[in-house]
Amino acid sequence: MAKAKVYVTFKDGVLEPQGKTVNAALLKMGYKNIKDVRIGKFIEIEIENGDKKKIKKEIDEICDRLLANPNIEKYDFEIE
Amino acid sequence: MAKAKVYVTFKDGVLEPQGKTVNAALLKMGYKNIKDVRIGKFIEIEIENGDKKKIKKEIDEICDRLLANPNIEKYDFEIE
Repeated sequence: MAKAKVYVTFKDGVLEPQGKTVNAALLKMGYKNIKDVRIGKFIEIEIENGDKKKIKKEIDEICDRLLANPNIEKYDFEIE
Repeated sequence: MAKAKVYVTFKDGVLEPQGKTVNAALLKMGYKNIKDVRIGKFIEIEIENGDKKKIKKEIDEICDRLLANPNIEKYDFEIE
């Protein structure tokens, strides 16, 4: 079984309120050295073993079609 | 500036409906080789540079106190 780890994050410049809220909470809790927090998605996909190139192409397609919103999000992934 | 990348995922055995939904959608879209999908959080934290050991301890504490729910979630992180 192959495993893909996908990271979906907001593009630079896109306001990410959940991260801002966590950042403010951390400062209030006394973690004064925290400068920025951004929260995205971490997606683990288990795939039947096969040609690595083909799996890579498939995951890329899946990210484009379903996992990330290309208007505001970017993604990155690795296959294990 | 140091950067921490935090991965928060559900513990094994905890039902994760969002992943199940995405899994079902992918099968319907024709990706028949997808066996499991689990969705967690990917958190990027920017921290003032400092002693790496101290930063590591701080991020661990932040995960415990705020970012992960220890009843159902586990976390992992790396410092860059």
